[in-house]
Amino acid sequence: MSQIDTRLKELGLELPPPPKPAGNYVPVVKTGSHLYVSGMLALRDGEITHTGPVGESVGVDEAYQAAQVCMLNSMAAIHQAVGNWESVSRFVLINGFVYAVTGFAEAAQVINGASDLVSRVFGEKGSHARTAVAVNGLPKGSAVELQVTVEISG
Amino acid sequence: MSQIDTRLKELGLELPPPPKPAGNYVPVVKTGSHLYVSGMLALRDGEITHTGPVGESVGVDEAYQAAQVCMLNSMAAIHQAVGNWESVSRFVLINGFVYAVTGFAEAAQVINGASDLVSRVFGEKGSHARTAVAVNGLPKGSAVELQVTVEISG
Amino acid sequence: MSQIDTRLKELGLELPPPPKPAGNYVPVVKTGSHLYVSGMLALRDGEITHTGPVGESVGVDEAYQAAQVCMLNSMAAIHQAVGNWESVSRFVLINGFVYAVTGFAEAAQVINGASDLVSRVFGEKGSHARTAVAVNGLPKGSAVELQVTVEISG
Repeated sequence: MSQIDTRLKELGLELPPPPKPAGNYVPVVKTGSHLYVSGMLALRDGEITHTGPVGESVGVDEAYQAAQVCMLNSMAAIHQAVGNWESVSRFVLINGFVYAVTGFAEAAQVINGASDLVSRVFGEKGSHARTAVAVNGLPKGSAVELQVTVEISG
Repeated sequence: MSQIDTRLKELGLELPPPPKPAGNYVPVVKTGSHLYVSGMLALRDGEITHTGPVGESVGVDEAYQAAQVCMLNSMAAIHQAVGNWESVSRFVLINGFVYAVTGFAEAAQVINGASDLVSRVFGEKGSHARTAVAVNGLPKGSAVELQVTVEISG
Repeated sequence: MSQIDTRLKELGLELPPPPKPAGNYVPVVKTGSHLYVSGMLALRDGEITHTGPVGESVGVDEAYQAAQVCMLNSMAAIHQAVGNWESVSRFVLINGFVYAVTGFAEAAQVINGASDLVSRVFGEKGSHARTAVAVNGLPKGSAVELQVTVEISG
């Protein structure tokens, strides 16, 4: 069992089956030494776990959990694409979108759900750049969507 | 005539003249083996073809067409930058923004207009990662904006 | 004194201290020959200089200034990451988000504040691809957020 799998287990987390794209695209593109992961929603077992808007139907703490769900889906897609964890040398960029009420000023606190998770699981390799913005709608009403880019080696 | 030009013709499509930037920037930056294309609007002959918000002044099917217009503009910019189609080895990432009413949950269906087009025209090379979000405004009121990244070779 | 420092001084501009991340992430990730800079707000001395929404509490001209503040923060983060200006060979992509009123159609004019600045300071190397969208909220109520990617050499 790899260190990452052990870490996930210690945290009581389990990778979901990799989500299927909702259109004519792929979950992950490998180009050079990078993987670009498609936007991942707070989707588990085919259902949105947290429906926005944040600040109305969902609070910041719940949306933090939604960001974790999105990150687990991103990790599942990455693992499916490379077949192991050892090749993942660095999380590069997380673009985080929060479906929220007008004027929502706490997108950073929500996307921390993803940042905290990837840091806990991947340590130094999980140290990433990040953007957090609020938007007025996301596919299927998901409270959060993440677009992740990682560096791979070997 | 290249295979891509033939395919465009078969689909009854014609590349527009590459759009000019609306400020102090360039349509395409080449860096290493990638091209980053500036955000492209649903602009043809200097006019926005589909004005948002989607869900109010424009329906999902019309917005799907708007996404095609944005993708054709992106393709025109790419072709202008590299001078041929053979160098384009892979569409990497399409970031799709839909100017829509609050709570719009069908950004994926709209951006399918771009994904379907690039897949039909480029086949395997058009197989890309993607993000779709709704926003509350886009330049000139365009219903859709796309930011495209492609890999080039040679 | 480097050419860039001279140019900044001529323009009456001074780099702020590099902003600290508001969570479990880093201001800049270096991967291959690129730097990905985290989303930068219109933050100076710990305070937001221009609070949105643009089109209501802030006009387009003021928001243009906010985009400059974001770009100065991005430059400060880049300089901190590489330790000099000579290694910065090209600004690649600026993703600009404007916290604005519903239907805001002038995100391009706002993000011009960043594009004009980087072009004035870096000349040809500042020639970048760009995206400008409006959103309904940004962290801390900032009127603008920028995510910048640059190419480095050597």
